[in-house]
Amino acid sequence: MPNIKLTIAYDGTNYHGWQRQKGHITIQETIERALKKFFKLRINLTASGRTDAGVHAISQVANFKIKKLKIPIEKLTYVLNNALPEDIRILKSELVNNTFDARKSAKSKTYLYVISNSSVQSPFSSRYSWHIPDKLNIHKMRSGGKYLIGKKDFRAFMSSGSAVNFTKRTIKKITISKHDSQIFITIKSDGFLKQMVRNIIGTLVEVGMGKRQPTDIRRILNSKDRKKAGICAPANGLFLLKVEY
Amino acid sequence: MPNIKLTIAYDGTNYHGWQRQKGHITIQETIERALKKFFKLRINLTASGRTDAGVHAISQVANFKIKKLKIPIEKLTYVLNNALPEDIRILKSELVNNTFDARKSAKSKTYLYVISNSSVQSPFSSRYSWHIPDKLNIHKMRSGGKYLIGKKDFRAFMSSGSAVNFTKRTIKKITISKHDSQIFITIKSDGFLKQMVRNIIGTLVEVGMGKRQPTDIRRILNSKDRKKAGICAPANGLFLLKVEY
Repeated sequence: MPNIKLTIAYDGTNYHGWQRQKGHITIQETIERALKKFFKLRINLTASGRTDAGVHAISQVANFKIKKLKIPIEKLTYVLNNALPEDIRILKSELVNNTFDARKSAKSKTYLYVISNSSVQSPFSSRYSWHIPDKLNIHKMRSGGKYLIGKKDFRAFMSSGSAVNFTKRTIKKITISKHDSQIFITIKSDGFLKQMVRNIIGTLVEVGMGKRQPTDIRRILNSKDRKKAGICAPANGLFLLKVEY
Repeated sequence: MPNIKLTIAYDGTNYHGWQRQKGHITIQETIERALKKFFKLRINLTASGRTDAGVHAISQVANFKIKKLKIPIEKLTYVLNNALPEDIRILKSELVNNTFDARKSAKSKTYLYVISNSSVQSPFSSRYSWHIPDKLNIHKMRSGGKYLIGKKDFRAFMSSGSAVNFTKRTIKKITISKHDSQIFITIKSDGFLKQMVRNIIGTLVEVGMGKRQPTDIRRILNSKDRKKAGICAPANGLFLLKVEY
């Protein structure tokens, strides 16, 4: 039974996140509808993980199994893109080993967060970044970020409403760089708790503004208390950049 | 009477172009409304020129005169941006000489056209580029573009419905460059006829595809016949890049 891996990019602005939800248009549902149109079958996609409403993906991965593929795998990308709206694109379709599972096989994921750090935000980046006109000290943000590296309990950075009990994750790498007025922050981890990236970004921004010290990050981690961390950064600056297998 | 010059950027996706029009939301009207909110007066903006529906501006220029400014000029940018939607931004507000007129004083304008030349278009560039999956020979496009340089009659590249009689313009420079899968074309001229940039781009793309030869451009110019030129490139790839005074 062919196992098909899709690499997907999407502009999340007009969607209620990845996962199927009654009464909302989601990315999963939109792609499953395109698959149904072609295969004449209800297909269930497994993604590497959910993305929240408004979050984008430069490279999300999903897979599904099908009895018969009907066309060469290279053609599938074209067929699906023809059936999809412009803000969702299949970048690649591949036949993979039968054991591959987009969620369970993922070793780590990297998210990118974009901040527009200029007095006036460009109208071309308002969909794709968080506008912060205040001065941000990225050296202090880097210092604060260092306390997050390694296997830690990230409960303080998990938003409420999650059913997850095991809250230890291993952040492997954080990079913070500035190009003109754009600040790019990447976070690579073996997994993420609910809104963990956005809660981390919101807290690091407060460090950058001087409202908190870099060492406060350690104190927040140790508290395991969401109320101790900073605000949740807006969804539109967040991109799922890469899933590593 | 203070004469105020505004430098403006906009994402034209949701607007029916620059110029006020009954029954359509336009950029001019939206900014004039923000001005009215602050000055409590009906203000008429003069722009360097119109942009068509769906066309963007990285740097459009407009001016207006007002009896009394009420606030320091630096503050005006902030005040207006607070009253404007995110897809229109005032980049700069300046007091200028009384004789300055955004339209009449303009010496030249430069437009940028963006083509996404990849098999699959990124969902993040679909609002801001023309997707052409076919192979484009940019050397041939450059050769064709050379015939457009100088003072010429561009009637063949003017869309119908224009009241303009004098159709000679001087194109000062055309650049065509490729970065990854994005092709950037800039055209600098002392003035542009109706949809002249988009008609030129559509024709150059046909040269790039091999449907026409570079020397055909000269023949099209000489014909002075719009029907001889290529298709009109879509509005969403076009940006007013700069107005020179």
